[in-house]
Amino acid sequence: MQPLTGFRDFLPAACAERNYIFAKWRAVARRYGFVEYDGPLLEELDLYKKKSGDEIVRQLYEFVDKGERAVALRPEMTPTLARIIVANHRNFRKPLKWFSIPQVFRYERPQRGRLREHFQLNCDIVGESSIEADAELIALAIDVVRAFGFRANDFVVRISDREFWTELLKVEGVSPERWEEVLQTIDKSEREPRPKTRERLGGLAGPVFEILEKGGESAKLNAIMGNLRARGLSDFATVDVGIVRGLAYYTGVVFEVFDRAGKFRAIAGGGRYDQLIAQLSNDSVSLPALGFATGDVVLGEMIHDNVVALRELESSVGSDRNIDIYAVIAKEERRTSAICLIQQLRDSGYRVDYPLAPAKVPRQFQAAEQLGARTAILFGDEWPSVAVKSLASGGQQLVPHEELITHLAANR
Amino acid sequence: MQPLTGFRDFLPAACAERNYIFAKWRAVARRYGFVEYDGPLLEELDLYKKKSGDEIVRQLYEFVDKGERAVALRPEMTPTLARIIVANHRNFRKPLKWFSIPQVFRYERPQRGRLREHFQLNCDIVGESSIEADAELIALAIDVVRAFGFRANDFVVRISDREFWTELLKVEGVSPERWEEVLQTIDKSEREPRPKTRERLGGLAGPVFEILEKGGESAKLNAIMGNLRARGLSDFATVDVGIVRGLAYYTGVVFEVFDRAGKFRAIAGGGRYDQLIAQLSNDSVSLPALGFATGDVVLGEMIHDNVVALRELESSVGSDRNIDIYAVIAKEERRTSAICLIQQLRDSGYRVDYPLAPAKVPRQFQAAEQLGARTAILFGDEWPSVAVKSLASGGQQLVPHEELITHLAANR
Repeated sequence: MQPLTGFRDFLPAACAERNYIFAKWRAVARRYGFVEYDGPLLEELDLYKKKSGDEIVRQLYEFVDKGERAVALRPEMTPTLARIIVANHRNFRKPLKWFSIPQVFRYERPQRGRLREHFQLNCDIVGESSIEADAELIALAIDVVRAFGFRANDFVVRISDREFWTELLKVEGVSPERWEEVLQTIDKSEREPRPKTRERLGGLAGPVFEILEKGGESAKLNAIMGNLRARGLSDFATVDVGIVRGLAYYTGVVFEVFDRAGKFRAIAGGGRYDQLIAQLSNDSVSLPALGFATGDVVLGEMIHDNVVALRELESSVGSDRNIDIYAVIAKEERRTSAICLIQQLRDSGYRVDYPLAPAKVPRQFQAAEQLGARTAILFGDEWPSVAVKSLASGGQQLVPHEELITHLAANR
Repeated sequence: MQPLTGFRDFLPAACAERNYIFAKWRAVARRYGFVEYDGPLLEELDLYKKKSGDEIVRQLYEFVDKGERAVALRPEMTPTLARIIVANHRNFRKPLKWFSIPQVFRYERPQRGRLREHFQLNCDIVGESSIEADAELIALAIDVVRAFGFRANDFVVRISDREFWTELLKVEGVSPERWEEVLQTIDKSEREPRPKTRERLGGLAGPVFEILEKGGESAKLNAIMGNLRARGLSDFATVDVGIVRGLAYYTGVVFEVFDRAGKFRAIAGGGRYDQLIAQLSNDSVSLPALGFATGDVVLGEMIHDNVVALRELESSVGSDRNIDIYAVIAKEERRTSAICLIQQLRDSGYRVDYPLAPAKVPRQFQAAEQLGARTAILFGDEWPSVAVKSLASGGQQLVPHEELITHLAANR
């Protein structure tokens, strides 16, 4: 009777939290001029085999469908976006600023902050190579986290540039086939004992550790930090060459968002992938692009760990689930009249519930409270009037039933 | 570069339509006091094998995962709901009124009104056996369709009771193993040449055709029609014994919603499944239940075929995607100041876009219009003032930059 390991049932309280997260994500992305799109949950396996890198391919939910197609549940959104862009980009003005809230799937060992499915906000800018686009995207990533009540002492964006590392690999003469493996080793070095990283890197260990220790600087990263300063967001960002990102397709600026206390996994991550669209279309379409994703699982853990963020969530989630009015049917012979009025109330936009079977009046008031109603309307001896009772104040007023809608609108 | 056959890419216009449909679904369900839940997209294969009936099982997207579990993409939501109820019902007051908007998957031949995936609104009432619950659910199904601008001459709910047929099967001494097959034949008889149905039914053809022709009546269905009349909804409903429903688990009142002109597939369908929860829990939990589902594909076709519904959709969809303000950077030396103000505008809740790279002013105004901005703000020679231009009226006003937010709020 339980869901599959790593999958979630969303009971009403959890579903309301999810709706709260999605609504904030949508609102912030739209403030930045992003428009929503979506793609299929199932794609051809090849879409991921070629571009996403070994780690993702090992964790794919893949199978052969009844039509003998090799398919996979999407493990991430960027390949789908790139495919959609290749097929449709001619119909859109550049740059595109698009967002999506896909559910994605990876067969991993479930652990804190990581399940086998989660929902992501994906935001991408396509068709713009200027560094201003990188700054705009990073500012959005910051504001997406700020929207939940987190402040500069709660989280930070660590910004880097893959070119630091690809330049080094070129200088050191590392063959391009080995790049992905080396980049993944550098990416993981922070979470791994130094001797282990040294062993994996071999002859490259010296220069890699030197860069990691002395840090890096570049005109590009300075420009981004300057731009964030103009926005008043520089307290949320720092340059950190240790950020490399696990995915294979990144080409330029990359970044990850972390909680300052280091208690959680990365909250968000992204960067430039200027070659992906060209690769996917066999060079028939070439568009620079960049994007980031942030997931609901780590975010949820962080919200529940932060007093301010949790208070904001709780006040919003309650009002989302509560009804407005409970119709108390005190006399069963008033049921038909009650149903007629309930329909009018609902047509006017009120959320209304009532007993579907005869019940004692105190039990009905109990239900009204549990459902979060602000008002109870009693259908009983007072008919053709009804008693309108405020469940907060306990105050009660007799209203002729044909004046009920007007009365409620005036006292809203 | 295309999605898999039977799957959809949701480009921004299509995604805005989907959001419009989901928002209406949520609003109406909440007006009826339903609260949202969700379940996993992937479930154990057994959950469907046992309960959903042969047709669904033949069309499952099923596979074995990397942990050797037989799993399936959900083809419908009711088995997941029943599983969640069995595991969690003790924490909730009865009756439960729950809704969900799952994406569901069936491997079928794609055709008009039917793809291999679609989104459904599912609404269920659990823990209530009174006929009032059936009426409440059918009223909700009607209001869900009405919400899109459809009227009583556009669609109708056809209501029946499986007990008409199961009583007949008992009287005729048909063995229970054959019931599902016979019920499916009756369900399909409307869309099939009569001789073919006669052949399938054999000795049952006589009594079945007799009921189909003379229609049926029962105290239960009369009560439902009376209840709908009290709500002012009886014009939207009719009794029709020909409705049987394809799924195996229905036990009582069943209904389907159709367009009156007969141009489309069923818009919605549902009914009572009082035994499913007991069956699934091996009788450890027994709760009466009923529900319906309506999908986005047929609904979308109907909206685009109806002038009133389409007008309502289009007015809502536009405002969903448009930005509020476009910042025109007429002088590049004002970019930093512009970015600072853009951040303040976004923080105040405005949707703002601007050129990520230097561009000629006329091109920027073109972008502003294409993005649906109502206002352009010019950063140029007038600095430290900005020119605030209404894109509708063409009217323009100089505003000191530090007064911009107040000015916009006053003129909102």
